[in-house]
Amino acid sequence: MKKKAINIGIIGFGNIGSSVASNLKKNSSIISERSGVSVRVKLVYDKASKAIKKARSMGIGVAKKAQEVIKHPEIDIVVEAMGGETPAKKLILGAISNGKHVVTSNKEVIAKNLKKILEAAKRKGVSVLFEGAVGGGTPIIGPLRDDLSGNAVTLLYGIVNGTTNYILSRMTESEMEFGEALKEAVKDGYAEADPRMDIEGYDSAYKAAILSSVAFGADVKIKDVYVDGISKISQEDIKYAKDIGYKIKLLAVAKLVQGEAEVSVHPMLIPASHRIASVSGALNAIYLKGFPVGDVLLSAQGAGGNPTSSSVIGDIIEIAKRIKKGDSAVSWPSLSNIRIRKSEDTKSRYYIRLRAPDKFGVLAGISKAFAGEKVSIQAVVQKETVGNVATIVILIHPVREKNLLKAVSKIKRLSVVKEVCSVIRVTSG
Amino acid sequence: MKKKAINIGIIGFGNIGSSVASNLKKNSSIISERSGVSVRVKLVYDKASKAIKKARSMGIGVAKKAQEVIKHPEIDIVVEAMGGETPAKKLILGAISNGKHVVTSNKEVIAKNLKKILEAAKRKGVSVLFEGAVGGGTPIIGPLRDDLSGNAVTLLYGIVNGTTNYILSRMTESEMEFGEALKEAVKDGYAEADPRMDIEGYDSAYKAAILSSVAFGADVKIKDVYVDGISKISQEDIKYAKDIGYKIKLLAVAKLVQGEAEVSVHPMLIPASHRIASVSGALNAIYLKGFPVGDVLLSAQGAGGNPTSSSVIGDIIEIAKRIKKGDSAVSWPSLSNIRIRKSEDTKSRYYIRLRAPDKFGVLAGISKAFAGEKVSIQAVVQKETVGNVATIVILIHPVREKNLLKAVSKIKRLSVVKEVCSVIRVTSG
Repeated sequence: MKKKAINIGIIGFGNIGSSVASNLKKNSSIISERSGVSVRVKLVYDKASKAIKKARSMGIGVAKKAQEVIKHPEIDIVVEAMGGETPAKKLILGAISNGKHVVTSNKEVIAKNLKKILEAAKRKGVSVLFEGAVGGGTPIIGPLRDDLSGNAVTLLYGIVNGTTNYILSRMTESEMEFGEALKEAVKDGYAEADPRMDIEGYDSAYKAAILSSVAFGADVKIKDVYVDGISKISQEDIKYAKDIGYKIKLLAVAKLVQGEAEVSVHPMLIPASHRIASVSGALNAIYLKGFPVGDVLLSAQGAGGNPTSSSVIGDIIEIAKRIKKGDSAVSWPSLSNIRIRKSEDTKSRYYIRLRAPDKFGVLAGISKAFAGEKVSIQAVVQKETVGNVATIVILIHPVREKNLLKAVSKIKRLSVVKEVCSVIRVTSG
Repeated sequence: MKKKAINIGIIGFGNIGSSVASNLKKNSSIISERSGVSVRVKLVYDKASKAIKKARSMGIGVAKKAQEVIKHPEIDIVVEAMGGETPAKKLILGAISNGKHVVTSNKEVIAKNLKKILEAAKRKGVSVLFEGAVGGGTPIIGPLRDDLSGNAVTLLYGIVNGTTNYILSRMTESEMEFGEALKEAVKDGYAEADPRMDIEGYDSAYKAAILSSVAFGADVKIKDVYVDGISKISQEDIKYAKDIGYKIKLLAVAKLVQGEAEVSVHPMLIPASHRIASVSGALNAIYLKGFPVGDVLLSAQGAGGNPTSSSVIGDIIEIAKRIKKGDSAVSWPSLSNIRIRKSEDTKSRYYIRLRAPDKFGVLAGISKAFAGEKVSIQAVVQKETVGNVATIVILIHPVREKNLLKAVSKIKRLSVVKEVCSVIRVTSG
C-alpha cells in the first residue's frame, strides 16, 4: 500500500491535540522530507466549542462523534489526545480493530492497558506508539525499544512529573515550605488547581508502570507500583539533606533484582553530584543503568503542548514511513509476567530525622533498637538543639523495608525519643 | 525473506569488535526476544594474532581476508570495527554492493563519506547504521532520525570527546595545568599515547560533521568544520571563568542560522548552571534545541568497548527485525547541499583575558579599539595585579568573528597592553 499522503485523525483537540496539528503544519516540509510522504490532519473530534472553532480555523474537518474518526475509511493514523482511561481505552481498541494505527500520549490508558492494547495491535498488524506518555518531549520509549534494545536494563530513576520537581526545586532554592511552593506552582501554572494526582505521586506511578514494562519487557500493572508523594517533605529535610550533600527528588524507580521487579514512586535523597540531581524546575529526566551501555541520562521538557507534540509527531513519522514503504507495523516484544517484589521486601538506604532530648543515653537507645532489627547505621549527625530537644539525622545502610519499619516503630516507642519526623529513602546507584 | 538466524560478520576484532561479539552472546536471550530472531557472529576478520585467538576461543570462524567477510553468502550484516578511512571505506562500499547491511562505529569513514555511503545503500536497498560513531553509548543518531524527527533542530552542543572532557574536568576540579592533566589522562588510560587527534579537536570534528549532517539533513563535509583544540587553555582561564560563573568545555557546535550551517569545534565558556556544563569526566553528552521539543540533553559513556557495543548492537537489532519481517531498509533522507557559513562570518560572545599595566587610561584605550570595530563590551573584571601588571577579563556581546579578530589585533598593538593571553568563545543559548 504505497500512498502519497497520510491522513491523521485526532481525538481530543485541547493543548496537545491542537499542538500536534499546528506543528505538523509548521514543520510540514521537514516532516514530508523525513517520512517520504505528506502528512495531514483530516478530521478532529472534540466536544468543546472552542476546540471545534480552532480546528475549523485550521481548515480541518470536525467529526460529530469520536466514532467517526476511528471508522473513517481515509484515516490512517488515529491520535488519541483526550487523556484518562474512559472513553480513550474503548476508542483506541476500536481504532485498532478498524485497522488504524494509533499514537497516544495518554499515560493512564497506556499504564492500565498496555498489554491488552499491544496484543490487539499485533493481531491486527497495526502500530501503537506512545512516546509522549512518559517525559513529554524526552526521547525514552523509542531509545529503550531501539537504540538501547541490546541492553539488560537493571535500574531506572525517572523525574517524570514536572509539577513535583518544580515544587521540590523551589523548596531547595528558596527555602520555602511545601505549602508555599505548591501555592506558587499553582499561581505560575506549574500545578493544576487540584494538584493531588501530581503531588501524591499517582501521575508518576503511571509513568513508572510504563517505563518498567518497556524496559523489562514485562507486564507491570499500576497496582504493582508502590506510591508515596511529596506532601510530607519539609524544609527541614531539604536543608539537612543539603548539609550532608544530597537533594530530595520525587523519583519513579524501576529495578530488576534477581529476576524480580521493584517498581515504586517516592521521594528520595540523591547525592547532589548525581547526574539526575541537577535536573531542576519543570524538566523531566530518565537515568538508567544497563549492560553493556553503563549509565545513560535522557532529559527534556516533561509537559506542555509543544514538547509532547514532538514525541507524538515522531511517532506519526515512524508509522508514516512504514505505511509509505509497505513495511510491517512497529513490533513490541510480548510482555511477560514478572514477579513483583513487595515494597516491604525491597532494600534501600534510608534517611531518618527524629527529635530527642539532648541527653546522655539517647543515641545508645536508638542504636540498640536499630541493631535489634539488623538495621545498620551508616552515619549520625546531631543537628540544632532547641529547648533541650535535639534534631538527629541518621543515615541507614541498605536494609529491607520490613526491618526498617519495625525498628522505626520500636524507636517511636522509646521514652528517649520525642518524635520520628521523617523516613525517606536514599539512592544507592 | 524470513529467517531463523541472522549472521554477523565483524571486520576488526579489537576492543569494539570483540565487545560486540561477547555482548551479543551475553545478552543473547534479550536480543532474540527483542529482534524476534537469533543473532550470531559467524565470521571475523582481523590481522592481529591476539584477535584471531580471541575469536577462535569464542567459537567464531576467522577469515583470512576482509573480502571473505563482505562476500560470504551467509553473512547478513557486516560490522565494520576497524576505524580509519582506509580500508574501511572500500570494505563498507564493497559490503553494500554485495547486498550486505552495514553497521559501523567508525567516525572517520562516516564523517568523510556519509553521503556516498548512504546513496550506495539506497541503491542496493540495504541499511547502514552508525549510532556508535558519535557519543559511544549515547543514543543520539537514532533519536535524531526517529523520536525527534518532527523537529526543526537549530542548535547542537556536543561534548563528544571523553579525553578532552576528562582533561578539562581535572583542570577544573584539581586546579592542574593542561600539561599535568594530560599526563594524568595518559597514565590513567583516558588519553592515547599520541593524544593529538583528541586534544586538537579533530576527533570531535568528525562527530560534529556527522551530527550536523544528520540533524540538518545536509551534506556537511569535514572541511566545513572549523577546528580549535584545548592545548592553549590555561589554569588561569579555568579559574577566571569559574569566578564569573562559567566552565570551559570543548564543544562540537552545529547551528542553523538563516538557512546556513555553522559547524565548529572549539573550547567554550558555558554558564555553570547550563545542563551540559555538569557533564564531567569521560562522559559524553549532546544538548540540542529544536522546535517544537525545546531543549534536550542525551548523555552516556562516550567510549570503550561496552558502551560502544550497546550502540552497535542496537543497530544490529534494528536491522535484524527488518530482515526477519521482510521490511525495507532503514531510510535516511537524502543529504542536501547546504551553505556553510565561514568561521569569520559567525557570531559569538567572547571571553578575552589580557595583561596590561595597572594605570589610568588602559581601559579607555581598549574600549576605544573595540568600539572602532563595533565590538561591544558586556563586562570587564580587573583581576589580580602582579608587579604593576593587571590581568583584565572582558566579556564581549555577540559579534562577528571578523570584527572581533580585527579589534584584538588592534589591541595587541596598543602600547598600554602587554599581552592578549586568551580569546575564547562563550555560549549564548
